[in-house]
Amino acid sequence: MAPTDPLNAGGVGQVRTERVRLFDADNPLRLSSGATLAEVDIAYETYGTLNADASNAVFICHALTGDAHAAGVHEGATKPGWWDNLIGPGRPVDTDHFFVICPNLLGGCQGSTGPASVNPETGRAYGLDFPLLQMSDFVAVHRALLTHLGVQTLTAVVGGSLGGMQVLQWALAHPEQVRNAVIIAASSRLSAQNIAFSAVAREAIMRDTGFRAGHYLDEGTLPEVGLSIARMMAHITYLSEEAMAEKFGRRFQDSTTPRHGFGVDFEVESYLNHQGETFLNRFDALSYLYLTRVMDYFDPFSEYAELGHVRAAGTRFCVLSFDSDWRFDTTHSRRIATRLEQSGCATTFREISSPWGHDSFLLEIPAYHATVRAFLERAREEALR
Amino acid sequence: MAPTDPLNAGGVGQVRTERVRLFDADNPLRLSSGATLAEVDIAYETYGTLNADASNAVFICHALTGDAHAAGVHEGATKPGWWDNLIGPGRPVDTDHFFVICPNLLGGCQGSTGPASVNPETGRAYGLDFPLLQMSDFVAVHRALLTHLGVQTLTAVVGGSLGGMQVLQWALAHPEQVRNAVIIAASSRLSAQNIAFSAVAREAIMRDTGFRAGHYLDEGTLPEVGLSIARMMAHITYLSEEAMAEKFGRRFQDSTTPRHGFGVDFEVESYLNHQGETFLNRFDALSYLYLTRVMDYFDPFSEYAELGHVRAAGTRFCVLSFDSDWRFDTTHSRRIATRLEQSGCATTFREISSPWGHDSFLLEIPAYHATVRAFLERAREEALR
Repeated sequence: MAPTDPLNAGGVGQVRTERVRLFDADNPLRLSSGATLAEVDIAYETYGTLNADASNAVFICHALTGDAHAAGVHEGATKPGWWDNLIGPGRPVDTDHFFVICPNLLGGCQGSTGPASVNPETGRAYGLDFPLLQMSDFVAVHRALLTHLGVQTLTAVVGGSLGGMQVLQWALAHPEQVRNAVIIAASSRLSAQNIAFSAVAREAIMRDTGFRAGHYLDEGTLPEVGLSIARMMAHITYLSEEAMAEKFGRRFQDSTTPRHGFGVDFEVESYLNHQGETFLNRFDALSYLYLTRVMDYFDPFSEYAELGHVRAAGTRFCVLSFDSDWRFDTTHSRRIATRLEQSGCATTFREISSPWGHDSFLLEIPAYHATVRAFLERAREEALR
Repeated sequence: MAPTDPLNAGGVGQVRTERVRLFDADNPLRLSSGATLAEVDIAYETYGTLNADASNAVFICHALTGDAHAAGVHEGATKPGWWDNLIGPGRPVDTDHFFVICPNLLGGCQGSTGPASVNPETGRAYGLDFPLLQMSDFVAVHRALLTHLGVQTLTAVVGGSLGGMQVLQWALAHPEQVRNAVIIAASSRLSAQNIAFSAVAREAIMRDTGFRAGHYLDEGTLPEVGLSIARMMAHITYLSEEAMAEKFGRRFQDSTTPRHGFGVDFEVESYLNHQGETFLNRFDALSYLYLTRVMDYFDPFSEYAELGHVRAAGTRFCVLSFDSDWRFDTTHSRRIATRLEQSGCATTFREISSPWGHDSFLLEIPAYHATVRAFLERAREEALR
């Protein structure tokens, strides 16, 4: 693709997703729970060029329903990667300087091994036989990917929402590998309300008659209703009340007057239905269960109570929240920043003003992008010293 | 029941639900939409005694899933009515002085005619053939009940949430009948986010394979999954984040350590599952659709833009909100109060401090009860003049 392609003007251009087997029967992945996975494939993309001493790598951790395609454009695609506004030449995660790596998560469904993958022991999809995962398992697989790519340390790890939670886990468990950690709109510990939303979403999936105790892939059914409902509910929490009011208000879909009925009438209903429907084409219900459950149990400061090892490694943190985010509001980010600061870790905390709620981390908000840019420029300068 | 029964100590004692046919083939109910209902039965309860000139009546409007049993105890029951802490001798709605009336809503499923009732024309349950309702239809039926009871004017109409919305409709449409209106934790116009939550709940019900296009009663199925999911989601919005944190936090149900799995593990999951399950025994999915849709379309100030008739009738308003309520936050109540005040209507507005979210209107919160008590005492004194 020519760099002038309007789809990705000034971006990293055409890209493709690679796939690598990081663990196999001879070298199985041992999970935090003690269970093992005999085959782990990971889908990933890279942008920019790794320098000679492999010291310019930046790692991107995606959110719950993200994938490896963070930037650039796939052949024939009609839109760029999900974080294309942040990653590219001259962008905050500057591919003129950084070698950027973004994998699809273990447990995901977009190229990486997950519960919808075939269990080599049975020849059938794992379903609920796939082992429970923890945040540390994501990090273990990411570290194996780095080894595969010949990278030892990272200039930075950057992630939003679930991605930011992974960044925190990585920095607390292996600070010597993470020079700088950018944790955006994330949490170190879900609240009861956070867990409640995820719990209802999972119940909608698991109680769907198409779920078949997790064997829907073998049985040729799909828990489509449950997965759509889960996604619709999630979208309510991704937008602020203010953003919803501005985007949709009480406007009607087809006219200026109500049709009165139970079909789609208000614009916000049309939006949610669309979100629920398109999600079915790109996401697996089992992955939704596994990844949300990792978030529920995550509580890294209970495991890493003493942060002397992080302080000693000199990892720097940038913690960002958005003032209208009510999925993970600023108290979550502030708790992370306070805990790090009190332990003597170099920490920048900033609450960004934005009306767009949790979704803000995906948007090109000037103060947000400027903060990430400045933090990573400083990281780069330090790496050059 | 002896008044010393601990179940209802000091309350109105044993009560029973009455039922009356207010409209029939000779006198059908003509709805706001133009549709008619040839048979309308309404379940209701009364507490206290109507005085000789029928001037001491107070009308109670229940919320979305409420019923006619607001106070006292049914024979053999293990708990009193849903607003028993507010209604009774010496309580804020004082049955030593007031004759209190509480019906189950038209469209409901607890004794009043609704979409699960038998359509006299077909001999089968209405299902989605039941006509769409509007807030004014509730009021029309309530007015017919008053006629049946020999009451012309009301000392007060009191309601919370959907009930408060009805109070507003009644006072704007027939202010001469409503001397005092108490509107608690309500809204004159749902926000996009409010509508979104209801829309997802309805989708969960209507897409349930047991829904059968609304004919589940005839077909012997029930949309139990959808109705449970709707209720679980609703309960998240009824409690504040703070209340959820205090009630459940991140505690586990059975032990101090997680079990790790997709079953119920956190206490908040157990709570939601219980709420979803018990709801199935007492509520009908079609009623849930019909009553929530009435709320979505409600926007009375667009119909009653000029409030000169309300001002002239001298109706007094008491508008209350709770500071932790995010289902209908204080901006909703303030909008109602401001609109009334600007039109010259006598309006008391108060935001009550309470950590319990939307559920606060059902709880015995001293500042809240004191405000209702004072407002109704003043109403009574005025009626005596």
